[in-house]
Amino acid sequence: MVPHLITALTGPINELEQRIIDSMPATERWFRLEWMEHTPPFYTSVDIRNAGFKLAPVDTNLFPGGWNHLTPEMLPLAVQAAMAAIEKICPEARNLLIVPENHTRNSFYLSNLAQLQRIFNMAGLHVRIGSISPDVKKPLVMDLPNGESITLEPLLRERGRIGLKNFDPCTILLNNDLSAGVPGILEDLHAQYLLPPLHAGWSVRRKSKHFRSYEEVTKRFGKVLGIDPWLINPLFGKCSDVDLTSSTGLEQLQTQVDTLLGKIRRKYKEYGINEKPFVVVKADNGTHGMGVMTVRDAKELAALQPQTLASMAVSKDGQTVHDALIQEGVLTQERVHEAVAEPVVYMVDRYVVGGFYRIHADRGSDENLNAPGAGFVPLAFHHSTQLPQPGARPGASAPNRFYMYGVVARLAMLAASYELEATDPNAEVYD
Amino acid sequence: MVPHLITALTGPINELEQRIIDSMPATERWFRLEWMEHTPPFYTSVDIRNAGFKLAPVDTNLFPGGWNHLTPEMLPLAVQAAMAAIEKICPEARNLLIVPENHTRNSFYLSNLAQLQRIFNMAGLHVRIGSISPDVKKPLVMDLPNGESITLEPLLRERGRIGLKNFDPCTILLNNDLSAGVPGILEDLHAQYLLPPLHAGWSVRRKSKHFRSYEEVTKRFGKVLGIDPWLINPLFGKCSDVDLTSSTGLEQLQTQVDTLLGKIRRKYKEYGINEKPFVVVKADNGTHGMGVMTVRDAKELAALQPQTLASMAVSKDGQTVHDALIQEGVLTQERVHEAVAEPVVYMVDRYVVGGFYRIHADRGSDENLNAPGAGFVPLAFHHSTQLPQPGARPGASAPNRFYMYGVVARLAMLAASYELEATDPNAEVYD
Repeated sequence: MVPHLITALTGPINELEQRIIDSMPATERWFRLEWMEHTPPFYTSVDIRNAGFKLAPVDTNLFPGGWNHLTPEMLPLAVQAAMAAIEKICPEARNLLIVPENHTRNSFYLSNLAQLQRIFNMAGLHVRIGSISPDVKKPLVMDLPNGESITLEPLLRERGRIGLKNFDPCTILLNNDLSAGVPGILEDLHAQYLLPPLHAGWSVRRKSKHFRSYEEVTKRFGKVLGIDPWLINPLFGKCSDVDLTSSTGLEQLQTQVDTLLGKIRRKYKEYGINEKPFVVVKADNGTHGMGVMTVRDAKELAALQPQTLASMAVSKDGQTVHDALIQEGVLTQERVHEAVAEPVVYMVDRYVVGGFYRIHADRGSDENLNAPGAGFVPLAFHHSTQLPQPGARPGASAPNRFYMYGVVARLAMLAASYELEATDPNAEVYD
Repeated sequence: MVPHLITALTGPINELEQRIIDSMPATERWFRLEWMEHTPPFYTSVDIRNAGFKLAPVDTNLFPGGWNHLTPEMLPLAVQAAMAAIEKICPEARNLLIVPENHTRNSFYLSNLAQLQRIFNMAGLHVRIGSISPDVKKPLVMDLPNGESITLEPLLRERGRIGLKNFDPCTILLNNDLSAGVPGILEDLHAQYLLPPLHAGWSVRRKSKHFRSYEEVTKRFGKVLGIDPWLINPLFGKCSDVDLTSSTGLEQLQTQVDTLLGKIRRKYKEYGINEKPFVVVKADNGTHGMGVMTVRDAKELAALQPQTLASMAVSKDGQTVHDALIQEGVLTQERVHEAVAEPVVYMVDRYVVGGFYRIHADRGSDENLNAPGAGFVPLAFHHSTQLPQPGARPGASAPNRFYMYGVVARLAMLAASYELEATDPNAEVYD
């Protein structure tokens, strides 16, 4: 089933798609050279919004869940990329330990873990799952909706290494975004690879830093392609030390929102776009789609109820939000079965391995879709491939559309790579 | 369409399949460690024969044609592997030149070139085709059966580099097995990567060296798996300086055939196999399936007509055969649409990327199928993947069967890697 692409026929995205397809060898070479200098995150997923007139990543996840939504057709690519990653980082590895989030009762999340276990097993590793959840005191066999089951075991620490009973892994795959901070059990590991590293977690990462890196990346890539980077870059501002429960904090936020809306308005005018600009306000460090607010006018903020502000101020795992990211809102013009849809692209190492559409029947094209009630539809290659087809009419080829998404997702991944280098506590300084 | 696997239900191959599936992580790690020490050939195809009681590679091609027989579903894997190979060998590459065989009128071969061009273009290179055929004096646009076309251009040499008019490639992909010897135009290139290297061509390669390496590889891998290496290794002998037009040469060959048939008979007895042993006599250096003879009794050789002997004595491109390889014949028990079939596995760098069945309606299960009249059927994953399914009943899972083929094909590729190291004229000696 090829999702209906309602942006398929006209507008700047088709020009962008054409330019990206035409520049494929130059683009791929550009990425090759970047990856000579920079290390890609171990695995990444990127949420993309396609407004028809612009296309931008809105969230870059370095501990992606949702692997269970990749189709069986996509798995060989994921396995091959996992093999390449393992060969590069830890070829001698025999055992891999996955450290998951603590949602031990969420069967979607457990299916995600089962899929990760399958991918790395096929790549040639013994894979077991070690939970840091206080609920996991002994091995727990959890049944999955598809009839399979997985086993969660309590994580143990001994002589500076973590593992399970009778299982000493050389490599640890974190699938926990560390929103609650870094648990001591994961710190200062002795001679074990931790992938991704701890500073990729939300206790260190800031969205504003990511989008600052991304802006840099798009400026350089824009020159390669000869395009205005705005076509792939969401504008943003940052509001520091915001206390949304006080009126001072609110005023500061309103000013910032106003400024950003003004910038977007000028860009819309430049391109003759007749949409109403909006911004999205979210915590500068991670959440799972909670505390995300769509704002079309700074005045709306004054009218907000105290409980909305309070929910904004607290993110997943109860962390208080001090800094807010104000991001240019990017409409999503894609629809699958009439529901608003946004593509999510999955990568292992530097390779795009698959993706799907996140859809939400009850949300608008200017709203966050990563919310309860979301569904998932595999991306457009049921019987096809995700390889581009040079020569196809722009907008008419699902593989070409997906290739473009893959390019933008890789730009976001590259930005994350810069970001991780800049925040690496063990970085060597060559000044 | 899943080809009917008539070996699916019983016999030692199912035990082998089970053992290979069970040992997947150990096998993959073993390959990872091997590839730390050895460089895989750039691309490889391996012909495999499955006799039901044993499974063995019979031909390892380092300049594979037939890429056009891979299905669109397999292409993303080939592209990803090509990206990995390019990144490793020549990340800065911009232009790739393919140097093809001289069959400029064979539309199957031209489709193969178009497919290679597509794969490396998708991997991010500008790809053109430079022919050394004296027939190509100016750019020739050749139409393909599928409506596409490709352009063959005359290869030029200037200041120690080869290229085309206005096209200076940093990397050359040889798709010519150099059966006729190494043309001077390809020798001593200045600062250009030649992949595979010249000594991978049939002017240097010898099948007996390849199968000697393969024997070594299977002994070591047999220990990992706990199996008799014979189950995956075809026995062989070599007959040097054979002059088939004299009776002395013939006697020598008969003695060798007799010896090998005796060895096979003992193995058959050990395993209780009620088949009649046979050997295959072929030139020790390349051919395209010409000059290959099935022999069940050394006496048959005496009865051969002089013209058969003469055809044996001359291989492709008119080279005289001085050395013969006498190889244990491996029946193929696979059938597709009632035609005798043998799997052919394709690899790029260290990765299995696809394959197909070579079928031949007019040939027996003990005959060479690489002959005029052969057909090609994609391997067993029309809607499926080529990932193994642990837990499936041995023989019942096409992906598991294919995983086993992929392991054996990679063992042959590893043997080729050893072989290329041993014959590398630029190898550094550390004695």
